[in-house]
Amino acid sequence: MKLEEISRRLAEFARERNWDQFHTPKNLSMALSAEAAELLEIFQWLTDEQSKQILNEDKEMALVKQEIADVFIYLIWLADKLGVDIEKAVLDKIEQNENKYPVELAKNNATKYNKRA
Amino acid sequence: MKLEEISRRLAEFARERNWDQFHTPKNLSMALSAEAAELLEIFQWLTDEQSKQILNEDKEMALVKQEIADVFIYLIWLADKLGVDIEKAVLDKIEQNENKYPVELAKNNATKYNKRA
Amino acid sequence: MKLEEISRRLAEFARERNWDQFHTPKNLSMALSAEAAELLEIFQWLTDEQSKQILNEDKEMALVKQEIADVFIYLIWLADKLGVDIEKAVLDKIEQNENKYPVELAKNNATKYNKRA
Amino acid sequence: MKLEEISRRLAEFARERNWDQFHTPKNLSMALSAEAAELLEIFQWLTDEQSKQILNEDKEMALVKQEIADVFIYLIWLADKLGVDIEKAVLDKIEQNENKYPVELAKNNATKYNKRA
Repeated sequence: MKLEEISRRLAEFARERNWDQFHTPKNLSMALSAEAAELLEIFQWLTDEQSKQILNEDKEMALVKQEIADVFIYLIWLADKLGVDIEKAVLDKIEQNENKYPVELAKNNATKYNKRA
Repeated sequence: MKLEEISRRLAEFARERNWDQFHTPKNLSMALSAEAAELLEIFQWLTDEQSKQILNEDKEMALVKQEIADVFIYLIWLADKLGVDIEKAVLDKIEQNENKYPVELAKNNATKYNKRA
Repeated sequence: MKLEEISRRLAEFARERNWDQFHTPKNLSMALSAEAAELLEIFQWLTDEQSKQILNEDKEMALVKQEIADVFIYLIWLADKLGVDIEKAVLDKIEQNENKYPVELAKNNATKYNKRA
Repeated sequence: MKLEEISRRLAEFARERNWDQFHTPKNLSMALSAEAAELLEIFQWLTDEQSKQILNEDKEMALVKQEIADVFIYLIWLADKLGVDIEKAVLDKIEQNENKYPVELAKNNATKYNKRA
């Protein structure tokens, strides 16, 4: 499905419920962070290895999917509210990252580009 | 563009840089929260009204677009790493929310469904 | 009570339960963010004015107190684990802020010092 | 130093700058989460082991101290604004946790009490 189609459906969902009054950019940024933190909470006591194995646990994965969807939904609402073309923003950012993190420098290296020696 | 096309491009970006070693679900959940918080920071001292007016400020909006893209990118990477079909997860969640928040109850009401009197 | 007394009591609490194995600085930073986000969630749909009035609502305030305590506890554990003298860190920071935000410039102005025109 | 003494000094700092207008509980909850996320960012690409070794790196530790202080400061401001006696809240929570996580059940076990089998 195209991103803009999902955006349209979410915009309609909010409109039908008159949620625009709650959906200020400020409030949406809070809801987005709160949902992202629910993902964080799932992983906080797991080792890296355990965090990879989570995909074998149905109950945990059901929760993970819900939280991923929640973050996505608030992000789309926020982008929409601010007139951000999210697809364009993402493609621009990928291009930017290709310049900031060229393969030969960034290979095996997660150092933020502005901290690279 | 289709979501899966963006996912594919992002997966390739990480693979070329051997970033899989850093991209454990745990680490990605942290990066996702950290990026969401950068959006939060933009809005933290603004009133609701000022947060709406931000779309008239080019410099702030350039930053907003970057941060929205960052959240999106980490979310896709996390979903991908856990084998989550993000489109399906989102559509399932929208359907679930349609049941949890029926128009007649949720209209003008942001109360979480499990707190509704 | 002195801060160091609270720290001591919390360190003992963790030691008795052998929680040091879970309390890596990384994990504690995650738990701290997750708890901070629970506070965020309480306020996300409230207007500024409603957020002030929350102190008249017993049920909400009971929750607020719990979450404030949780953030505090993880922060102390994190500081302790990294050998940070939190009292000294806070007093140093206050002094730094007095220099960064002198009264005559910062009065009525929440602009971050590095963004001030 | 006593907690209430630090609270008093922070309250004065805000009052001198007329920052009460910005310091609504809602805004403070956002600033708190944003600062907690800066700690998260420091640890996001480190392994658990590397996160422990950070205490040997002066430059990183200087940053850690600043961020820990920032979280502390916003937490105190938030508690103060809502009339929460933070020392009492923390001591109550410790007592509560002693009941929720008795040594014999919680030893070597980070499972949240409501998920324990």
